[in-house]
Parts: sequence; C-alpha cells; structure tokens
Amino acid sequence: MTIPDYSCPKRNRQVLLVERPSGIPRPEHFRLVETPLAPLADGQILIRNVYLSVDPAQRGWAADLRNYSPPVALGSVMRALGVGVVLESRMGGIRPGDIVYGWTGWQDYGRLDLGDVLSSTRTPRAPISAYAGVLGINGMTAWLAFGALGRPRAGEAALVSTAAGAVGSVVGQLARAEGCRPLGLTGSDAKAEACVARFGFDAAFNYKRGDWRDRLGEAAPEGIDIFFDSVGGDILDDGLRRMRTAGRVVQCGTASIASWDPPPMGLRNEREVLARRLSWSGFVIFDHQSEFSRAIAGLESLIEDGRLVYDEDIEVGIEAAPGALQRLYAGENVGKKLIFIG
Amino acid sequence: MTIPDYSCPKRNRQVLLVERPSGIPRPEHFRLVETPLAPLADGQILIRNVYLSVDPAQRGWAADLRNYSPPVALGSVMRALGVGVVLESRMGGIRPGDIVYGWTGWQDYGRLDLGDVLSSTRTPRAPISAYAGVLGINGMTAWLAFGALGRPRAGEAALVSTAAGAVGSVVGQLARAEGCRPLGLTGSDAKAEACVARFGFDAAFNYKRGDWRDRLGEAAPEGIDIFFDSVGGDILDDGLRRMRTAGRVVQCGTASIASWDPPPMGLRNEREVLARRLSWSGFVIFDHQSEFSRAIAGLESLIEDGRLVYDEDIEVGIEAAPGALQRLYAGENVGKKLIFIG
Repeated sequence: MTIPDYSCPKRNRQVLLVERPSGIPRPEHFRLVETPLAPLADGQILIRNVYLSVDPAQRGWAADLRNYSPPVALGSVMRALGVGVVLESRMGGIRPGDIVYGWTGWQDYGRLDLGDVLSSTRTPRAPISAYAGVLGINGMTAWLAFGALGRPRAGEAALVSTAAGAVGSVVGQLARAEGCRPLGLTGSDAKAEACVARFGFDAAFNYKRGDWRDRLGEAAPEGIDIFFDSVGGDILDDGLRRMRTAGRVVQCGTASIASWDPPPMGLRNEREVLARRLSWSGFVIFDHQSEFSRAIAGLESLIEDGRLVYDEDIEVGIEAAPGALQRLYAGENVGKKLIFIG
Repeated sequence: MTIPDYSCPKRNRQVLLVERPSGIPRPEHFRLVETPLAPLADGQILIRNVYLSVDPAQRGWAADLRNYSPPVALGSVMRALGVGVVLESRMGGIRPGDIVYGWTGWQDYGRLDLGDVLSSTRTPRAPISAYAGVLGINGMTAWLAFGALGRPRAGEAALVSTAAGAVGSVVGQLARAEGCRPLGLTGSDAKAEACVARFGFDAAFNYKRGDWRDRLGEAAPEGIDIFFDSVGGDILDDGLRRMRTAGRVVQCGTASIASWDPPPMGLRNEREVLARRLSWSGFVIFDHQSEFSRAIAGLESLIEDGRLVYDEDIEVGIEAAPGALQRLYAGENVGKKLIFIG
C-alpha cells in the first residue's frame, strides 16, 4: 500500500462539546474550532483521520449521566471513533501508513495513546471505511454479543430491533449464517424491504405501522428465542412478552428512550424474566477488547466470502459532525453513519 | 427405619380450589372435603402425607395467569408439594416405607405417578420435614440458582431479598460458604437479627424501616455483585441500581407484586441491564429435576457438617391449609412453612 502524501499538519479542526445536552445532541451543543497540533509524545501516534464515526453511544458520552464511561468534559473535543492513516509513530508495533481505528475524536488529526487504539492493520482486507463500521464496534458488537450472549442454535427465531442498522443488519446475517430465522424491526417500509432483500432476514416489519405486532406474531407464532435489542422501551416490552422459555435477550442499546433523567416508567418486566426463564444480558463492546482481533478476522472472512454485506451512509466534511447525531436518531440513515474528512 | 403402621385408608380429606383468586389465595377460595380413595394403578404409589408444603408459587398455580405451569382446575385438589411415607407401591424403585417428596396435593393421601415424585429416599440423613423444605425445592433452588446463575466468587457482595425465608436463608449460608459477603433484606427487626445471628449474613436490614436504603449503601459502598431476588418491585429496582459492573441478578420470585393483571408499572430497567452489563436470569426449579439428587446430597452434607441450619414454621392439621398462603404472604412465618398432618 502506498502511504498517502499528507503534508505536515499545522492546524487541526476540532468539534468541541460546549453545552451539555439533556437528550439527543444538536448542532448548538457543539462548536467547530481550529487549534494548533501539539507535538507527539513517546508512545503516541499521529493519525490523519479519514472517516469519523457517528454512533448512538455518543449521546450518552455527551450527557452527564451515570454511564459506562465518564461524560465528555465541556470545552473538549467530542469523543468519537474514527479510522485514519498513521502519519507518525512513536508507538511500538505501529508504522506510518498503517490503518488505525480508535478514539480519534471528531477532529482532523488525532494523537493517540496505546489505549486509544482499538485495532490496526497494515494489510486491510476491506475498504478502510469498513474498519469504522462493519469491522468496527458495530460489526464486532454483532459478532461478539450475538455469539456469546445470544447463543444461537439452528432453527431458532431471532428478533432484531434496528434491523437495518449498522449492528442489526450484521446480526441478521450472522443469525442466518447460524441457521436461525432472523426477524427484523425497523423504522420504514424501505428499510424493512432492505432487511429481507439485502440482509437475509426472513421477514422484517416497520414498527411505525400499526400492524407490526400482529404481523410479527404471524411470522413467529411460537415466539422468539433470541431478542437482540438496541432500542428498549415499548418494543423491548413487547419482545419480552414474545420470548420462549429459556430465551436470551441481549441489550445492546436503549435508543428509543430520549432521556433517562428522570427515569421513565414502563411495564414491570421481572415476571417475564422469571416465568420465561430468560437470560437478559447487557453488552458493551469496550469490555471485549481482547476479542477484537478474532472478531475482525471472522467478519473479514465473511465479507470476502460474500456472506456479509453492509451499507454506509457517508456525509462529507467535518462541518457535518455537529448535526450528525440528530440525523442518526431521526433514523434517516441506512447503514453505518460516517463522515468522510480525508 | 420402621414402617409406620397406617391402617388401610378409606377416606381422604382434600383441600379443593373452588374459586379463582385474583391475588393472594384466601380461605374462601378453598373447600375441605372428604372423598373415597381410588385404587392404585400400575406405576403408581400411595403415600400417607406427613407434611404438606406451603409455597409462594402456589399463588400462581391458583390464579389463571400465563405462568410456568397451567392453573389448578377449579374443583380439583389444590396443587401442592408434600412429603410422606409410601404405604403401597406399584412403581419400580420405590418400596413401602420410603420417604417421598413430590406432588402430593393438599390432602391426606396421595396417589403419585412417576412424574409426581421429585425425590425419594430409603435412608434419610435429616428429619423428613427437611425433605419438603431445605432439601426440597426451597433449598434446591438456593443451591442450584445461586451456583449456576449467581456464579459466586470469594469476596463478592451478595444481596438476598426475603433473606430470612426458606430460600433466602439457605442462599445466605451458601454465599458465606463461598466466601462472599451476604447481605439480607427482610420484613422485621427480629428476622434481620436472625439473618445475622443464625444464618451468617454480614448484615441484614428490615425493609419496612425508612433507613434501609442508606444502611445497605453503607454496608456495600462499592455495590452488589450478586442479587438473589424473590420479591421484584421497588426492592428489585433499588437493587438493580446498586449492581456493580458484570453483576448477576437471579430472579426466583416476584412475591411483592400482588397481581400481574393488569401488569403493574415501574421504573424502566433496561438501561441498568445495559450500562452495568448485568446478567439477569429467571430460575424455575422444576426445569432442573435432573440435578435434584446432586443438590440434595450437597445440602445433606452441609447439614451434617453443621454448616447449614434451617427453620421451620409448622402448623398442625389439614384445616390450616386454606389460610396458610395468606399467612405466608403476610410474612409472619420464620423459615419454611409446613402443615403437619401425619
């Protein structure tokens, strides 16, 4: 691979978090600034970001809630994943020209410590945008959570919420590969069609239509064995009440709940857990860093074999970042949302 | 062991379910009748019941809800566990004089099929009442659920609701035996004292006192690793919010919720599952029949070693049965509630 010829960077455009959102972050919570690049310290790498990632979890990082990671400090660069090309390395094992996926932040250039690097490759087996999506936390979440917590067995019915999304579309394809019957929920008729035509779901339903509950019931008259849920709320409550005995519920997100402060009320679910003998588990990808290489290699092979397809929704220019989460939560994108700034 | 000299039974007193309760069964939902005993069929045993069991799950069996077992038909004998002495056997492997624990129903005599027998012994290692309590589903639930779903590790904090009860008191002692720090919740100061003094809890709190949340927080400032819950409701919601990352929640009952029709509302908990990476599992003992002998043998050994103590609350006479569930849910008993009719 040819190392791109990036001239020595002097100025770094950064998207700062300047106001704390209570719900979904909007453009006014951010400010785009230009700052000089600090010199590299021992153990660091400098990367030119090519794709910035836009992830639902960023809402939690921007908010000041008890979360699985501390909130982004006001006035600092918005925490974000991204994929880029190494320009300079003072970190063992990484060389200029390597492709690095990690905690780049929403900015042109990232100075990364070892702990900021989630994966790196010298020999990409897929377009580098894939390393921020289907080979990034989205695909790895699908691979690791569906396997370890979903524990699929051939013939089982697997329900996936956000089935057309960056995680859900991979879960559907993995479920198919395991011999399960994947069923999807998504937010438009077009996405429901894509789930079946492109991602191999047995059936998929638009939850904005009034008849989705009946139609899902017809598609899985005996109930659901695995529920891979990223939305929570009413859809979760409905899914729990469809679970078969000894079913597995994998909680990978709670995207339908705009704010947890104050905590919203809903149906009590402990009886479902008990009477159906469910196993309901939470999954946060960053707990599983030691398994990333294995997950990436497995996903790369599926892509090469033509058994795993993925969509990307790529916006262009760092100016798109401040409004990107609002658009993500509006559900307009099909596939992984990225911002190309390379 | 000498076989008791029971004269040939002619009349069988039975407690019938005659009205369907919507909440906790009360005396007026039952009727005590006397019926002739039908002759034994091939493959059956006749047992003279000695102890009838009173279990929280009977509320669910009496109600007409979707449950993990079908409801008791109106006009039939109330489904119940019990322990008794075999009078006559046409079942392989069982002889007169054996002690049998199983689905006897609330009646003087039981004609049991193979599927009704949960355990049997010719050489009891404990008083026979124990086979309906600490060696019955209560102790076996504690042993099997705490081990397989709680996955205890030394040093962990284990919170147990209904800590002085027939299941909870065993969980506390098993947690102690595993090197965990058992913490209990119970419904009176006297029971809280018994948890510490008799069942080896590090601390136990009366949830009817206003300060239990603060005191529990002081006892487990770093949170809870294992939550063994049998009550659901507010106490469950509170416990979930104290869980440490990767904590295990074992749902063995929902005793605090008087009725699930209509489904009650509560705090949404999917965010706790996700952000704390919980593993929240339901446990129903009757799924685990193949593990019963192993559980009983392990519990018998702990009793013989003096490492497992248990209390029994024994009422006398079958006339006590119709009001026993109401008294059980009032929380008046200490230890396993049984009715002696031998």
